[in-house]
Amino acid sequence: MKSRAAVAFAAGEPLKIAEIDVAPPRAGEVLVKITHTGVCHTDAFTLSGDDPEGLFPCVLGHEGAGIVVEVGEGVTSVKPGDHVIPLYTAECGQCLFCKSGKTNLCTAVRATQGKGVMPDGTTRFSYNGEPIYHYMGCSTFSEYTVVAEVSLAKVNPAANPEHVCLLGCGVTTGIGAVHNTAKVAEGDSVAVFGLGGIGLAVIQGARQAKAGRIIAVDTNPSKFELARQFGATDCVNPKDHDQPIQQVIVEMTGWGVDHSFECIGNVNVMRAALECAHRGWGQSVIIGVAGAGQEIATRPFQLVTGRKWMGTAFGGVKGRSQLPGMVEDAMKGEIELAPFVTHTMELEKINEAFELMHAGKSIRSVVHF
Amino acid sequence: MKSRAAVAFAAGEPLKIAEIDVAPPRAGEVLVKITHTGVCHTDAFTLSGDDPEGLFPCVLGHEGAGIVVEVGEGVTSVKPGDHVIPLYTAECGQCLFCKSGKTNLCTAVRATQGKGVMPDGTTRFSYNGEPIYHYMGCSTFSEYTVVAEVSLAKVNPAANPEHVCLLGCGVTTGIGAVHNTAKVAEGDSVAVFGLGGIGLAVIQGARQAKAGRIIAVDTNPSKFELARQFGATDCVNPKDHDQPIQQVIVEMTGWGVDHSFECIGNVNVMRAALECAHRGWGQSVIIGVAGAGQEIATRPFQLVTGRKWMGTAFGGVKGRSQLPGMVEDAMKGEIELAPFVTHTMELEKINEAFELMHAGKSIRSVVHF
Repeated sequence: MKSRAAVAFAAGEPLKIAEIDVAPPRAGEVLVKITHTGVCHTDAFTLSGDDPEGLFPCVLGHEGAGIVVEVGEGVTSVKPGDHVIPLYTAECGQCLFCKSGKTNLCTAVRATQGKGVMPDGTTRFSYNGEPIYHYMGCSTFSEYTVVAEVSLAKVNPAANPEHVCLLGCGVTTGIGAVHNTAKVAEGDSVAVFGLGGIGLAVIQGARQAKAGRIIAVDTNPSKFELARQFGATDCVNPKDHDQPIQQVIVEMTGWGVDHSFECIGNVNVMRAALECAHRGWGQSVIIGVAGAGQEIATRPFQLVTGRKWMGTAFGGVKGRSQLPGMVEDAMKGEIELAPFVTHTMELEKINEAFELMHAGKSIRSVVHF
Repeated sequence: MKSRAAVAFAAGEPLKIAEIDVAPPRAGEVLVKITHTGVCHTDAFTLSGDDPEGLFPCVLGHEGAGIVVEVGEGVTSVKPGDHVIPLYTAECGQCLFCKSGKTNLCTAVRATQGKGVMPDGTTRFSYNGEPIYHYMGCSTFSEYTVVAEVSLAKVNPAANPEHVCLLGCGVTTGIGAVHNTAKVAEGDSVAVFGLGGIGLAVIQGARQAKAGRIIAVDTNPSKFELARQFGATDCVNPKDHDQPIQQVIVEMTGWGVDHSFECIGNVNVMRAALECAHRGWGQSVIIGVAGAGQEIATRPFQLVTGRKWMGTAFGGVKGRSQLPGMVEDAMKGEIELAPFVTHTMELEKINEAFELMHAGKSIRSVVHF
């Protein structure tokens, strides 16, 4: 079938709107009509060419909401008409990782997903007869996309797709990092570095967890109002201080914060986030994705004196098990999604979403198909 | 009073046996007659001059056993004749850290201990009228030493002091790291880097915890026999492999080990230990003390894909609460201490203990006063 799509033909170039060909779903696959998709920093990172695993031409996008159109052989968990959120972190329920109960890092489709193809090693997308790669197992920048059954969360059809598409990545990652990875408890202190969609979601998660002090850190003070609205108790601009930001936060709190979250992808900020964690038990969660080959560093004394350094992918959330419940939470208002959607646009204007993001003017742009 | 002691008069020089003066215990202090002391790598590290916090002249030693001789004003928890183990990690029960229930890193005497003095800012040791610094709040290389009350664990007087002195540092650190820091569970896989006293204690702790595979790693294969005796299931010499050791261990285990422990103090080994931890949930505990200013590094992807990096001091053990129980465990044979004591000697021969350690010929030398 034909599908409108924003195609990344080459690294560093704007997306091009094209009519591509989408082949039918094969065994274990599902054809989904995407109705809404967020535009995330990870899409921009791959488009920039800095992602060493980026493959072109491809259909980017991994933060979408849609409706099942057709299912391939053997698919039983969804049927045409079901409302779904595509998952870049699958949940097969069968692999070592799913069965462990300790992680959401399912390996079912991991190897092929990283190569931009479906589990059988081929693509369902083509343009003028040439194959186009998939992206993160989702490719939500195409109106019609093919996704593995294990990469689809079936959600309440009454949910607002313009909002719940954000649960496909950023908001879930931030909220999940608070509850699943850091396990923030009532009264704990929290520092959040970077007030994009993920950082704001961390703040929201921290407020849900009844954290005490929530310190929001960004070099762009225009983000502070929304951070306060979501629950930040203190907003700090590192540019206002001569000392390193970790020292500022340690002085603000006495011994550092119980939990810190890096939501940028900057390895120097990752170090600062670790080093502002509380002596004895503070922990620091890396959420941001650093550039290729970059490394984090610190003195081991930081760990020997009780700090823990950890990370999270998709907030530790098991998509098929847990995302439907998070959609319900959003419908009840327990997760607020509307404030994240600062801009909406038609697919044809998707490059504006990237421009707004790069200019720091948007939290999330949501594209309507 | 006069006391025989092995004094570190200057960095990089052998200890000198001297008769020093020991002043009586002041308020909150206790005079202890040391009967036995282990010699640990940390003593050697400070003696070498590489420890930026090292102060000279000082009385080293922090792994001892002794008997209370006299108590200062206000001391109620011990009395003359009590058998005690000095603690370089105090436990006051009153500070933020003790009260947290989350860490053993008591701050009661931390600031002055790091400066080589008693909590009132003065030393109890002198030689020819010149002050001599304390060390780690213990100074067990003097037959008579003065220790803060909060830095003494009262233990069963029937215990063998030649053995239980080792619970003052190395063995407790290794066993504690397994139970308190990593929380190794039945069937978990473990890798231990460095088979000195701490590494062997980690192996023993892992066997207590009913770990499954216990992989012992050292470049000195003469350590492997004792490692196997303590419970290692596999012994690996990195020199036998062309690949980095983390890759060797990942290949041996499929996805890495559930827990790894660095027991050397080498920042490159710390990295290897982290990177051989299991994708999704593996954790790596830094126990070794690195050289001044050295840093650990890795790619943040290692943490984002589920590994945790942490450290431990004194194995997370709260000395006054928990050490008496560990002494009982040793008396019941649940902690084996005898195999650690490869050499014993009189105080006058203490420099031989350092030589044996540097040559990799001893696990622990225990000095008898």
